Amino acid sequence: MAKEITPRSEDYSQWYLDIVRKARLADTSPVRGCMVIKPHGFGIWERMRDALDAMFKETGHVNAYFPLFIPKSFLSKEAAHVEGFAKECAVVTHYRLKNDPNGGGVVVDPEAKLEEELIVRPTSETIIWNTYRDWIQSYRDLPILINQWANVVRWEMRTRPFLRTAEFLWQEGHTAHATADEAMTETRLILDVYARFAEEWMAMPVIKGLKTENERFAGADETFCIEALMQDGRALQAGTSHFLGQNFAKAFDVLFLNKDNQQEHVWATSWGVSTRLVGGLIMTHSDDDGLVIPPKLAPVQVVIVPIPKPSPELDEAAAKISTALRAKGIRVKVDDDDQNRPGFKFAEYEMIGVPVRLGLGQRDLAANQVEVARRDTKEKANVPLDGIADHIAALLEEIQQNLFDRAKAHRDGHITKVDSWDEFVEVLENKGGFLSAHWDGTTETEVEIKEKTKATIRCIPLDAPDEPGACVLTGKPSKRRVLFAKAY
Amino acid sequence: MAKEITPRSEDYSQWYLDIVRKARLADTSPVRGCMVIKPHGFGIWERMRDALDAMFKETGHVNAYFPLFIPKSFLSKEAAHVEGFAKECAVVTHYRLKNDPNGGGVVVDPEAKLEEELIVRPTSETIIWNTYRDWIQSYRDLPILINQWANVVRWEMRTRPFLRTAEFLWQEGHTAHATADEAMTETRLILDVYARFAEEWMAMPVIKGLKTENERFAGADETFCIEALMQDGRALQAGTSHFLGQNFAKAFDVLFLNKDNQQEHVWATSWGVSTRLVGGLIMTHSDDDGLVIPPKLAPVQVVIVPIPKPSPELDEAAAKISTALRAKGIRVKVDDDDQNRPGFKFAEYEMIGVPVRLGLGQRDLAANQVEVARRDTKEKANVPLDGIADHIAALLEEIQQNLFDRAKAHRDGHITKVDSWDEFVEVLENKGGFLSAHWDGTTETEVEIKEKTKATIRCIPLDAPDEPGACVLTGKPSKRRVLFAKAY
Repeated sequence: MAKEITPRSEDYSQWYLDIVRKARLADTSPVRGCMVIKPHGFGIWERMRDALDAMFKETGHVNAYFPLFIPKSFLSKEAAHVEGFAKECAVVTHYRLKNDPNGGGVVVDPEAKLEEELIVRPTSETIIWNTYRDWIQSYRDLPILINQWANVVRWEMRTRPFLRTAEFLWQEGHTAHATADEAMTETRLILDVYARFAEEWMAMPVIKGLKTENERFAGADETFCIEALMQDGRALQAGTSHFLGQNFAKAFDVLFLNKDNQQEHVWATSWGVSTRLVGGLIMTHSDDDGLVIPPKLAPVQVVIVPIPKPSPELDEAAAKISTALRAKGIRVKVDDDDQNRPGFKFAEYEMIGVPVRLGLGQRDLAANQVEVARRDTKEKANVPLDGIADHIAALLEEIQQNLFDRAKAHRDGHITKVDSWDEFVEVLENKGGFLSAHWDGTTETEVEIKEKTKATIRCIPLDAPDEPGACVLTGKPSKRRVLFAKAY
Repeated sequence: MAKEITPRSEDYSQWYLDIVRKARLADTSPVRGCMVIKPHGFGIWERMRDALDAMFKETGHVNAYFPLFIPKSFLSKEAAHVEGFAKECAVVTHYRLKNDPNGGGVVVDPEAKLEEELIVRPTSETIIWNTYRDWIQSYRDLPILINQWANVVRWEMRTRPFLRTAEFLWQEGHTAHATADEAMTETRLILDVYARFAEEWMAMPVIKGLKTENERFAGADETFCIEALMQDGRALQAGTSHFLGQNFAKAFDVLFLNKDNQQEHVWATSWGVSTRLVGGLIMTHSDDDGLVIPPKLAPVQVVIVPIPKPSPELDEAAAKISTALRAKGIRVKVDDDDQNRPGFKFAEYEMIGVPVRLGLGQRDLAANQVEVARRDTKEKANVPLDGIADHIAALLEEIQQNLFDRAKAHRDGHITKVDSWDEFVEVLENKGGFLSAHWDGTTETEVEIKEKTKATIRCIPLDAPDEPGACVLTGKPSKRRVLFAKAY
């Protein structure tokens, strides 16, 4: 099994694709750039979704659903937005097929041409703000705190499962506020929710920061982001929260009567995370033997394998253990397959990333113990059956923490201060990771650095201290360091 | 408020649209036939989804996700399927827009034409069975028990919110089996899940039955359904479960090695329910004052209204009551708005269908009691504050049961045995509901009856006893009665 995975040291990209395939997370599809999310991959996404959904609701948000299609003319209404999104869209032009009169199957019916083409949503600001116009009259209608779980389509040329696909699943929050302050507070609140989710659930440390103008969402005044670092030293933008100012309200004429009885444009935010997070999860924790999943997001947290195979006595013991674990809310599977050998099963559960494996044999039972194997460290230990549920519950927490600590140590070890261009190029090529460097604040310099090195400014960290310096490329003055990296 | 609702007796269709709008369930959208599901409507759908999802998982199913787009050629592969679905599809022909060289906003880029058009899925059998071909080699890969929650698009000419929309949300199960028996058992299992969900959660009594050949799903060998009866005497198909035989396996070459080591085509089922259920829920229980929701599906089950308005003392009492209710898992809202009067609030909560309203005034507090109003019967009673949580928990169950009993009495009172054509026409026109009548078993007669009366055969009830008779239209022999009705 594991042998079929390309080692990370050999080819990180291929290793990623091997994990996706061998851990049964996703499959290719006959539709260019679209993937099939298989049950194991979807099980992880479902847990992410449920955890995030609960966090959104705790902070006062509700879910709703807006149409998949956007009239073409809507995209043109916000000038920056159309530049950013209109170029890579799936366009619906007809609404009917008919039998080919020449017998060639079904063909598009030329008589069923839409008057105005419909775009499959790449993001929903336009259709939502067009709707909010009808919902908002006065400050008493505000705030609107709506989130939607949906599929969106962006016609990407180069795709990679989870990380970049033509269709992907995501949530998109779209909120409307009476004041700029309130909208900015919301933008920051969601950034904190995203960071907390990434760290507490995904065990993936992130840096909260502000995007440069050049990397901003098309239509936003400010884009905040969480940035993570993958094992190969590339960064991953894991979530974004946008302060949209009054841009969409102006584009769609959304006015409200404020407390001073005056008409004013509404203030907006939007924010989203997507199935891309599954890609980030894979690349943060997994190894050359397969997937590693933090226990909180693992569809199955513990698997019990009877050794060498199921028997009435072992099955009874396994049932007893699983009952005790389930009583603690632990997700357990008992492997009752009697065709495959334990060695095969062990490799399989390593491959799909079950955090804890219990191996249960006759001798263990006689000694009133069970072999407990951790997926993260590969450590094994014999553990007494008395109190096994408490032991496993604590172990799952320990694994969750260990994965975070390990990822954080890697990330922290890959933030390198560089103060010269030579150093910048050298560290970027040989060590990778985030380069903390001075930048003169111009898009021109940012673009030049990207063209020279493929590194982009991932963010201006929110906690970056004021520190005067000289731009690593131009030598011009800089007020603080920003983080550069090559990114997914 | 309520005055703005058209009474059912006056215009049932308009009453329905009024409820959808005034109870803030859905809104129209600028995209023809597509609706915006507002937070209150989506909150009901979310609870339906969660309850069904748990039932699917309890019966061994897992979720996955397949692409939104289907290559046009896939639709042609199953002959009956293409007839049923290809005619009403959204067709993606291009993947890029560009700036109009003549300055007219954005236009479709003629150079970005797809080689093969993509259809926005109207249902996913074709793309899923094309995928299953790669997943299935031997009987050991079976069964596959997959469900997907997704949006689908069918280009309907006449739409109505929830009941029939171009885009709608649904779940679609797609299972693969080694034997016909097993696939049929699955088809029936899901039918039972649907019926149980409709009755236990929606409080909507349903009849389980078999569709006639004419009403069968395009590509199925047998279609089972649950049929409900709305207040106006029209039937609503609320869910379908299809035994697909080997049709899709044959169309997509999905073979497996059976236990006898022989290649055989895989057996299939598919099944679905959609946001149409929200329409069924509305039309089963609501009245001229607004929406009525069974407590199990109500986003808010109990609202506490301080009378005449919030005050520190009333707020404290409301907080105490809501804490006690929440401890029992009851979803409570405390209305802390101090702008509107109680009368306005009462009408509003009636309109949106909160099952129980607690009115809390100074005098009540002094008497250590609270006024409890039921949405279903409009009854009010003063209830002691001691033990209020137990009282409300029991009341919610009582309301749930009462709604089911009421709907069942209405439904049972509207199943009429008719034995002559005159009777058929008379009952259909004046009483409505289900007509239990003999039918000669031919599509020709079925179609003729539909053309004459607009009534269709809703189903052959699974519990219909053998009873020889004469067809209500042709007088030809019939083995058992079937159910006719006009339907949504």
